[in-house]
Parts: sequence; C-alpha cells; structure tokens
Amino acid sequence: MTVDQAEIGAMRRALEIAVRGPRGVNPQVGAVLLSPAGEVLAEGWHHGAGTPHAEVDALSKLAPGQARGATAVVTLEPCNHHGRTGPCAQALIDAGVARVLYAVDDPGAASSGGAERLTAAGVEVVAGVLEGDAHALLESWLTVQRLGRPHVTVKWAQSLDGRAAASDGTSQWITGPAARADVHRRRAGADAIVVGTGTLLADDPALTARHPDGSLYDHQPRPVVLGARGIPDDAAVHRHPLPVLHRDGANLFGEHAGDDRASSLLTELRTLGVQRVFIEGGPTVASAFLRAGLADELLTYVAPTLIGSGADGADHPALRSLGVSSITGQIRLRTVSVEPLGDDLLIISQPRPADERADDRADEGEK
Amino acid sequence: MTVDQAEIGAMRRALEIAVRGPRGVNPQVGAVLLSPAGEVLAEGWHHGAGTPHAEVDALSKLAPGQARGATAVVTLEPCNHHGRTGPCAQALIDAGVARVLYAVDDPGAASSGGAERLTAAGVEVVAGVLEGDAHALLESWLTVQRLGRPHVTVKWAQSLDGRAAASDGTSQWITGPAARADVHRRRAGADAIVVGTGTLLADDPALTARHPDGSLYDHQPRPVVLGARGIPDDAAVHRHPLPVLHRDGANLFGEHAGDDRASSLLTELRTLGVQRVFIEGGPTVASAFLRAGLADELLTYVAPTLIGSGADGADHPALRSLGVSSITGQIRLRTVSVEPLGDDLLIISQPRPADERADDRADEGEK
Ligand SMILES: NC(=O)c1ccc[n+]([C@@H]2O[C@H](COP(=O)([O-])OP(=O)(O)OC[C@H]3O[C@@H](n4cnc5c(N)ncnc54)[C@H](OP(=O)(O)O)[C@@H]3O)[C@@H](O)[C@H]2O)c1
Ligand SMILES: NC(=O)c1ccc[n+]([C@@H]2O[C@H](COP(=O)([O-])OP(=O)(O)OC[C@H]3O[C@@H](n4cnc5c(N)ncnc54)[C@H](OP(=O)(O)O)[C@@H]3O)[C@@H](O)[C@H]2O)c1
Repeated sequence: MTVDQAEIGAMRRALEIAVRGPRGVNPQVGAVLLSPAGEVLAEGWHHGAGTPHAEVDALSKLAPGQARGATAVVTLEPCNHHGRTGPCAQALIDAGVARVLYAVDDPGAASSGGAERLTAAGVEVVAGVLEGDAHALLESWLTVQRLGRPHVTVKWAQSLDGRAAASDGTSQWITGPAARADVHRRRAGADAIVVGTGTLLADDPALTARHPDGSLYDHQPRPVVLGARGIPDDAAVHRHPLPVLHRDGANLFGEHAGDDRASSLLTELRTLGVQRVFIEGGPTVASAFLRAGLADELLTYVAPTLIGSGADGADHPALRSLGVSSITGQIRLRTVSVEPLGDDLLIISQPRPADERADDRADEGEK
Repeated sequence: MTVDQAEIGAMRRALEIAVRGPRGVNPQVGAVLLSPAGEVLAEGWHHGAGTPHAEVDALSKLAPGQARGATAVVTLEPCNHHGRTGPCAQALIDAGVARVLYAVDDPGAASSGGAERLTAAGVEVVAGVLEGDAHALLESWLTVQRLGRPHVTVKWAQSLDGRAAASDGTSQWITGPAARADVHRRRAGADAIVVGTGTLLADDPALTARHPDGSLYDHQPRPVVLGARGIPDDAAVHRHPLPVLHRDGANLFGEHAGDDRASSLLTELRTLGVQRVFIEGGPTVASAFLRAGLADELLTYVAPTLIGSGADGADHPALRSLGVSSITGQIRLRTVSVEPLGDDLLIISQPRPADERADDRADEGEK
C-alpha cells in the first residue's frame, strides 16, 4: 500500500509533537488526522499516564462526524486494551476513520492487537511508516517494555587490579577528570541514580549530573538511596533538585533477599516513570544488581594504577560476591567498546545471556 | 671525522658476526680489522664470558706487527678494565692500531673509558657508527647494564574485576586461545620464566614456550620455581628441555624478606646470563616483585568476565598485598598499549617512577 507525501509529512509532524508529552511510564506518542484530501484536520499527543492517548486527543478536537473517511497517522500502533482510556483502535473505528498509518508496533502483551482490530473492522492499515525515527524516539520506553523493568547501567571505577579503594578505605581519586566528566554526562542520560547507604555515608555524594564547571545538566536523575541506615539531615543529596527516594528494603537481607530488594526497587522505579537507572555503587549494591542478573550495561572505568590488598589483609575490591563459586559459573560479558579517557580506560560491556555462556573455552590443553 | 664505505661495510660485518657469540652475561660483540688500504685483515667475536673480547680475538689471528696502522671496527666501545682478559683498548694500542670505529658506548662503570684511553694514546676514535643497529642487537644486554639486573616482565590473567580464580580456586580458563598464544610467544622472548610453588603445585605447568600446535619454540626460557616447598618428582617442569632452577629463599619470610628473595633471585639469574625474566605468577610471587619495585613491564590479560568473591568470603584476587596502605601510595602506571586478543584485552603498562607519581589527581572537588 502506497503512502503519499502528505502522509509522510503528517508522520514527521506526529513525531515532532509526540515529545510534548512527558517521558515516563507511558510512551511519547503523536497523532495527526488527515482529511481524505490530505489536509490536516487535527493533531494530538499523549499528555501522560491517565490522560487520553494521542489519537483520542486528536479526535477530541473534531466535531462529531468530522473524522469520517479520515486518515489517522500515529507514531505507535493504536492500542487495543481497556486501560483508563479505552482502546484507541475502537475509538478510531467508531469515529469512522478509513485509514490508519503507524510507525512502531505496540510491544505490550495487553495493549497490542490494535492493527488487527482495525483491519477486522475494514480500516486500511499501514505499519512501519518512518519506523526508524519512531524507534529512536521511543527507544528507552521500548526497552522498558521489552525488559519488563527500567534499563540498568552499573558503573564502577577501579584500579587495574580491580580495587575500589586502598586498604585504609581511601579512594578519591582513582580515576581522572576525563573519566569523571564522562560519568556525569552519562548520569544526565539516566532518570534515576542509585547508591547504597555505604557510599552515601562514606562519600556524601550530591548525585547530580554536573558539567565540568559545576553547573547542572538540564536533565537530572532522581537520586535513590538503598539501605536500612538513615540519611543524615545535612547530606548533600538533600540539595539535589529532585527529592531523594530512600528505600531500606525492610528486613530483607542475605544473598537472595538482596536480589529481591534490587528487583522490587526497579518495579517501583518503573511505576515512577523511570526508564534508565544508573547504579553508581558502591561495591555491595553494584554486586547485588549483577548477582541478580539485573544489569544491562556495565561501565568499568579502569585507572592505570595498582592498589592490591592491605598488608593487614584489608581489601576493597570493586565488586564483592556475585554468587559465582566455580570458574564455569563466571558472568561472561560481551565487550561493547574500549575507550581511553585521559589516562583511564572505559570498558563498556554487557552480560551475555546464560545460554551463550556455556564454557566455550574449555577447548584446550594445559597452560 | 669521515667514515668511508669500506668502514661502514666492516661495521655491518662486525654486527653480523657478533651474534655468533652467546647472549648472556657478556655482550655479543663483533670486530673487523682493516688494513690502511681498507682490506679486511681479520675478524673476531666474543665467544662468551672468560674468553677473549672481540678485538683481541681478531688481533690474535694476525702475525705480530701486522696490525700496525690498521683500523679496528668494533660494535661496542673497546673496554678499559682489567677483567679476566685485560683492557682491549690497551691491546689495540699495543698492536699499533691507528684508528678505531665503534657503534655503542660501553655503559659499564668499570669497563668504560676505552675511547679516552685510545685517544690519549694518539689513536683516532670515531664513536656511533651504525649505532642504531648495534643498539638493537645489544638491547637487552644494555638494559641489564642500565638496571643492574635482568629486565622483569610480570604477567597475569584476570577477570575484568581483578580475580585470578573463582572462590573454589578454579581458574582454567579465564582467558582465551589468542591470549594464551600471545603469552607463549612472549615466553619465547624471555630467558627465564618464574613461578611460585603455589602455582607449580596447583597447575603443574610445563613452563615451556609452545606454538599453538604444541611444538616448542626454538628459544626456551629457563624454568625457575620460587618457594620452600619441594617440586614433585613427576612435575611436568622436569620434562622442560632446560633444567629447573629451584630457589627456596631459605628462611626469609614476611613483607621485606619477600622482596629480598625476589631481588637476590634476579642477581643470581643475571650471573647465569639471563637478560629477560618473565614472572608468570601466581598472585603471591607477582605481588612480591611489584611490591619490591622489581617490575619493568606489566602484561595484564583481562578476560570479559566477572568472578567476584565467594559467598563464603573466599577471594582470589590476581594481585595480593602491594604494600599500598593509602590511595596516595598506589602504584601508578603508564599505559603502553591496549590490544584486543580474541575476546580478551592485553593491557601493557609500566610502573611510573616514584617522582612522577605525586598525587596529580587531587585536583578537584567532590564526586
Ligand atoms: N569505585 C567506585 O566506583 C565506587 C563507587 C561508589 C562507592 N565507592 C566506595 O565504596 C565504599 C562503600 O562501599 P559499600 O559496599 O559499603 O557501599 P554501598 O554498596 O553503597 O552500600 C552498602 C549498603 O547498601 C545497602 N543495600 C542496599 N541494597 C542492598 C542489597 N541488595 N544487598 C546488600 N546491601 C544492600 C546496605 O545498607 P544498610 O546496611 O543500610 O541496609 C548495605 O550496607 C565507599 O568507600 C565508597 O567510596 C566506590
Ligand atoms: N591468573 C593468573 O595469571 C595466574 C597465574 C599463575 C597462577 N595462578 C593461580 O594462582 C594460584 C596460586 O597462587 P599463589 O599466590 O599461592 O602462588 P604462587 O605465587 O605461585 O606461589 C606462592 C608461593 O611462592 C613462594 N614465594 C616465592 N617467593 C616469594 C616471596 N617473595 N614472597 C612470598 N612467597 C614467595 C612461597 O612458597 P613456599 O610457601 O613454598 O615458600 C609462596 O607460598 C593457583 O591457583 C594458580 O592457578 C593464576
């Protein structure tokens, strides 16, 4: 089925107005209604959870009957579920829309099937119009739908030999200015930044995303502190522009309890509209997310330095127990990139799915 | 002073025959004697410790008086010390040599000064002829002279988070085939390969340098085992083409004792003609060399994997105590190169001299 220039133009416009809505729990969606002659009848976008979807927002701007025979151009497949707003597919059918163009399929189990319903009702449906652009726009929301939780980046800085601090606990500065600037830039791309009470109490971090001159990035991650211990009244995090979320995980302790704590936090953050979480440590919290398989991306900043353990046996590894007891159980990674940052090295990697991890190296003889 | 074509040709020849001598305690040196007309009168090379030096070897092939007015072309500055052979500078003077060309200055405190002695005796001296080539030939010997001990490479393989084994002690295979092949290639460039009894007893390594097909490289490093514990009679190392050197370091224990043990081993290896030592671990031995400041080059093979510590607290860091108690005391490195090897990464670095290590990073505000 051909798509004409007016329709392509309408999709571009729909993508443009989609971003007027907030990024959060719901997707950012835009819609444009065209008359059979190709004139714009109305525009709409999704204003956020609990408000009408983009198509319905656009329809609401027309007089009854005005959408009959119209073409609806929407960035996301019209939904098919009875949420707080009723299925958009049905609303389009009821309004007499003759043709629907959309960019990206609805990935939701409950909400998808809109295209089918439309087709069954005799509406002409074209999918995949400017799909790439819409994908880019919706990327982190789509990721949340795919994962069933926000995307998790775990970041840590370490010496070449994997230590986060010297034996007396001192750690500032392992990495240099370029690495720290990179961390702040990436913090600004996240919706929440998580630390444990250990780090909060040791370092009193502001948990803001700052330019090298100290000024704040426009987008700030929501600060999140994990742990039963309290946050001191004069903690720097209280001066963060966004309110701090403090979750103690109740009485859940131990290996598995820790994992639950990590996972239930992600569920809560998702309902708050968080799509990208940045775990900044410390070692205990970072390890809990890794152990639970709740890390999608790892950022390891490696400083050109050796620390070792203390002569007294005190040791501050950058990661603690990951639940790996034998070499065959190690968490295998896929290296995405290795990038020098000043004197440091940023290694970006992703945990490999368990089925890729089978011991592909037990293939040779003696050392 | 000009150097003519015949003389350049003679230096090339001297470099060529130098390698007939063994690489070891003494340098590989070649010498060619030219008549005043530029004809080759005699050639000589150094056959090894205790035998005549190259110039004297060449002179010995001439009848008395035959070297009068001749030009001596030597790859290394004629020596000036009374070793087992007497100063070569004096031998050249006594033989009536009129002109001496050499490539590289003698770096020895006791042996240098030959050029001065020759000049004082009225011999024309030209230094630095084909110096680059001679430097390349003598590189590891010159390094030994500069360091006062063999050159030390410390190699270890680790997971990204700095572990050498899982909590149950299993470690094969952290790194992949390409990294292992690289290790063998570098072993073949060393004169000795050192492991502790811990590694010997745990892994029973052959300590040979092997091609991927299992065949031996031509040049094999001498196997060295450090530690008080005995080597089992059926240990694989006994099948090494070179005899194993086992040093227990007597009753020297503790932080400093360990360092002495490392350093006295290097002194002994030097007297055995070892110019390049490859420390293969394990963690205890590698850390002892690093702690003592006896490492010139570090090879860190980083596998894309995470191991962490054991749930039971057992931990196998790739390095142990380095004598660093506070972050300001960390061993700062200069990264020489970062190279992917299959899925792994080889990071080559060098410890930075202490005076470069001053805390150049305590330059900024809060995290
Ligand atoms: N190198 C780096 O990249 C880096 C980054 C951050 C921090 N650090 C350093 O790390 C040190 C702090 O380390 P840390 O490991 O103690 O700090 P942490 O991971 O920040 O905090 C540990 C605390 O987190 C809480 N927690 C939350 N979720 C948990 C779970 N699922 N399982 C277990 N505990 C959970 C517990 O608090 P409660 O006990 O209160 O319940 C626990 O004691 C500081 O010295 C800091 O400077 C280094
Ligand atoms: N990842 C890697 O690259 C790598 C490489 C090699 C080995 N490994 C693993 O490392 C494990 C063995 O570790 P390890 O640390 O026990 O082995 P190690 O370093 O090979 O041996 C330790 C022993 O070395 C002796 N020693 C010699 N010089 C010493 C000094 N200056 N200071 C202290 N001790 C000195 C002592 O032996 P005595 O007690 O006999 O006196 C000591 O117990 C094995 O599991 C092996 O597979 C890993």
